[in-house]
Amino acid sequence: MKFSPALQELIEALRCLPGVGPKSAQRMTLHLLERDREGATALAAALQTAVDKVDHCSRCRNFTELEVCEICSDARRDAGTICVVETPADVLAVEQSGSYRGVYFVLMGHLSPIDGIGPEEIGLDRFQQRVVDEGIEEVILATNPTVEGEATAYYLSDVLQREGVKVSRIAHGVPLGGELEYVDGSTLAHAFSGRRPVE
Amino acid sequence: MKFSPALQELIEALRCLPGVGPKSAQRMTLHLLERDREGATALAAALQTAVDKVDHCSRCRNFTELEVCEICSDARRDAGTICVVETPADVLAVEQSGSYRGVYFVLMGHLSPIDGIGPEEIGLDRFQQRVVDEGIEEVILATNPTVEGEATAYYLSDVLQREGVKVSRIAHGVPLGGELEYVDGSTLAHAFSGRRPVE
Repeated sequence: MKFSPALQELIEALRCLPGVGPKSAQRMTLHLLERDREGATALAAALQTAVDKVDHCSRCRNFTELEVCEICSDARRDAGTICVVETPADVLAVEQSGSYRGVYFVLMGHLSPIDGIGPEEIGLDRFQQRVVDEGIEEVILATNPTVEGEATAYYLSDVLQREGVKVSRIAHGVPLGGELEYVDGSTLAHAFSGRRPVE
Repeated sequence: MKFSPALQELIEALRCLPGVGPKSAQRMTLHLLERDREGATALAAALQTAVDKVDHCSRCRNFTELEVCEICSDARRDAGTICVVETPADVLAVEQSGSYRGVYFVLMGHLSPIDGIGPEEIGLDRFQQRVVDEGIEEVILATNPTVEGEATAYYLSDVLQREGVKVSRIAHGVPLGGELEYVDGSTLAHAFSGRRPVE
């Protein structure tokens, strides 16, 4: 025995959300129908609008409803510095730190030859062209400190330095508020090899 | 800085799902747009269909697209026995146990005077009328063993017994496969007071 067809379909459809298993999907379905039908209608509309309208910015590949996103078209930002990140969530994190006034390039992933993701799949060919054409002053690599993120950063720094572009990588080390005791070995190793003279 | 308006709206809308906070909503939104736009479209449609079509069964109050749900209209089921549960999920649980062949009455909640939920809000007045009118043989109370569930069961058994209807409550005790060591005290107390002679 199962729920009625429309309920069963909604339970199945909710499974497309990351981290939602059969039990959560069932709980969500019953919650929406019992207590929040308005919310369900609003969610249906928001989903459809986002799918229809949101696409990639033609300059930085971040998600936007516009042809060129708000950050890329903001004249107050330093268009000569580009920060390369893996995902739109990374852009948000950097923006929230309030420490960066340049523009971005969002890879929407990282190099991963085993999954068939090469430089073209993450837009690196067009990015390289843009950096050269626009005479970009500095490219800051802020991909994740994972194997794939490091490989992507290494690849990019290699091709860009050959073009004579200044390339930097964000610092990795002990996070502020972190206690040495609980920091993992590779991070500590990074912190030591990246040490700077005290002035 | 935030995401673009359509993304921001979808993130807000996803918050209507139980157990979804701002971070999960953001992760879901980016996942859907990056990797599963088809899923998002299907989810939007399923939500709208469920909201438009699903209503309560006119007999048992369970969710259904029909006027009378499949269980209530199934001639092979014993219409003389009604099991009272709190939610549609409880119906599913009892059905999956395969141990019950009667019909149901779904309260869609429980008595909770503090939240303004009295007998009428959970349909008990109509239920009482139906039990009397149809000459129901037995009402099995399967509300949850919580304070509100017990109060609801107590209220129902009181009004139904005054009408001369046979009322029973499902057994509470140590679950099968459970180990005494890990069973809480109130359950154990229930198990002892509800002990039965070995035949």
